[in-house]
Amino acid sequence: MSRIYNFCAGPAALPLEALQEAQAHLVDYKGSGMSVMEMSHRGKEYDAIHNEAAANVRELMGLGDDYSVLFIQGGASLQFAMIPMNFLGQGQVADYVNSGSWSAAAVKQARIIGNANLAADTQKEIPTRMPSAAEMTWTPGAAYSHLTTNETIAGTQLKDIPETGSPLVADMSSDILSRPRDYARFSLVYAGAQKNLGPSGLALVVIRKDFAAKGSITLPTMLKYQTYIDDNSLYNTPPCFGIYMLCLTTRWMKKMGLPKLFAQNRDKAQLIYDAIDGGSGFYRGTAQKESRSDMNVTFRLPTEELETLFIKQASEAGMKQLKGHRSVGGIRASIYNAFPVAGVEALVSFMKDFEKRNG
Amino acid sequence: MSRIYNFCAGPAALPLEALQEAQAHLVDYKGSGMSVMEMSHRGKEYDAIHNEAAANVRELMGLGDDYSVLFIQGGASLQFAMIPMNFLGQGQVADYVNSGSWSAAAVKQARIIGNANLAADTQKEIPTRMPSAAEMTWTPGAAYSHLTTNETIAGTQLKDIPETGSPLVADMSSDILSRPRDYARFSLVYAGAQKNLGPSGLALVVIRKDFAAKGSITLPTMLKYQTYIDDNSLYNTPPCFGIYMLCLTTRWMKKMGLPKLFAQNRDKAQLIYDAIDGGSGFYRGTAQKESRSDMNVTFRLPTEELETLFIKQASEAGMKQLKGHRSVGGIRASIYNAFPVAGVEALVSFMKDFEKRNG
Repeated sequence: MSRIYNFCAGPAALPLEALQEAQAHLVDYKGSGMSVMEMSHRGKEYDAIHNEAAANVRELMGLGDDYSVLFIQGGASLQFAMIPMNFLGQGQVADYVNSGSWSAAAVKQARIIGNANLAADTQKEIPTRMPSAAEMTWTPGAAYSHLTTNETIAGTQLKDIPETGSPLVADMSSDILSRPRDYARFSLVYAGAQKNLGPSGLALVVIRKDFAAKGSITLPTMLKYQTYIDDNSLYNTPPCFGIYMLCLTTRWMKKMGLPKLFAQNRDKAQLIYDAIDGGSGFYRGTAQKESRSDMNVTFRLPTEELETLFIKQASEAGMKQLKGHRSVGGIRASIYNAFPVAGVEALVSFMKDFEKRNG
Repeated sequence: MSRIYNFCAGPAALPLEALQEAQAHLVDYKGSGMSVMEMSHRGKEYDAIHNEAAANVRELMGLGDDYSVLFIQGGASLQFAMIPMNFLGQGQVADYVNSGSWSAAAVKQARIIGNANLAADTQKEIPTRMPSAAEMTWTPGAAYSHLTTNETIAGTQLKDIPETGSPLVADMSSDILSRPRDYARFSLVYAGAQKNLGPSGLALVVIRKDFAAKGSITLPTMLKYQTYIDDNSLYNTPPCFGIYMLCLTTRWMKKMGLPKLFAQNRDKAQLIYDAIDGGSGFYRGTAQKESRSDMNVTFRLPTEELETLFIKQASEAGMKQLKGHRSVGGIRASIYNAFPVAGVEALVSFMKDFEKRNG
């Protein structure tokens, strides 16, 4: 086996021990004589997996009984629609911070449903950045206020959560459980699993029960949060194997411990930012320093030709998927929770060597 | 490894060779250095999987270029809502054949959206049965007509597809690609994958492009079929691993060949029905003979106590999940495409022995 260093922005690297555990049990889960993919979602083996996954999330996020932990199909993209469908009624307004491509995508879906106001807008600014709390203007009585805590394309991250005066909703797809956050401040947090939590095909949603109770009651059953709360995300057959992988990934996080994981994430990012800032100017970070993401490190080289060469030679050295998003170009190193420290060290070493050869 | 005979109604048994292939490559897919779960959904390795999965479906179902093959999250339950959201506008009516629990679930969601008429209704009849074409009354100019080709709980199957006079839509979750069908008669066919096609967390939708073009344009992006058509089911990150498993399962079907697979399915069911009918009356089939399903064989024993004993002793002999759905009781043997002939033979042998000991 020769595992590569996979810098993909998502689906992204998973903990090796989670993959190995899944592999060992793929055809016969712990002597049950079945794969997890073949099990009744109402049987005792799957039930244990499902409930451990939710309990791990609850423990890691520090959530009380006033929250429900839900598993919903459709990724963050379906959440962009479900949130306004449930909570943005006629005559209401919701505030959105438009900080990049993903928040813009959330705004677009909200505006199909109702009235979405931009509390701040830095989406098109260069260098890319998150707005400060001082720049944000909140609507009194808004149905909710929506934040995107990490923009994977821009490589920016919201370090501090503002006071908004209305129920806080956040897309944390790309930085959930990667740094300290007070989740108890949020009414709804959602995250596509395929960056920090597991494989694609699954969104984690944590929601305050009293907020969920305000949701529209005229929606189809599968589009109401209350359905998932009432049936422990088992109203219909859930994405069982994805939830199993989330269970293994969160088990790995618990074993490491969040303080160690968070410190490691910060250190991994710092190593690359130091390599960018400490050089001769050959590398240029694309995000404003105060907004730099610990999850997606974005930078440019002096020319596009050098960027192409960098990506090609890094790939040949086993460091894959370093190409920036097609909409912005440049280099992007996505280093989520499960991305190994050794991979970051290999990249930094490669960066120094590449600069020497081409600088 | 000791694989059981898994009679679960879904998630259900998958082809052993598909599971073994997935296991071999789980940590390092064909020398890529990544799991399929870790791959960019826009990279060349996943692209090949995605397109093979769709091409296999297209070939097996005999679909022309006038159809699109889509992979959508949310299972059949989300399709119950998406279909009327897209195609049942104000002032329109859609016809539904209400033949059991699953068609009733589809009707319930349609009535949240608009006007759903029952073209026939046998949902509550005992013995369970599918209505005949002669019993069905179609609305002239209906937006579409909806069938459920197999009812997993009742153990009934629609053998012949009626002429309805409006675009045909069918839930084939539990019998897709299990018997000869002329799919070119349908405008939309959908199926949760977790019975005949792969793991849960994925619905297969095949749709005529000209029908999709009639869909509502005011819906959120993730709820429009046109989105999945325009982006080859890659508008957002798809459930990559589930599609990979569907690819392996459809590859297994192609290798066996549909004529052999269909004959095997018919023979498997016949073996059990013969054991029911050929005995002393100890076993009683619960579905009307003409409506009997080849996928879910439902029967009763003289008493509930004997049923409990039957299920317990069968389980001890490695035949699991034979308990009927909680809403109806009795015995249910679900024997989808991937369920092995040897498992059916083992059940029939057990049935005869059990009758001898308890008859």
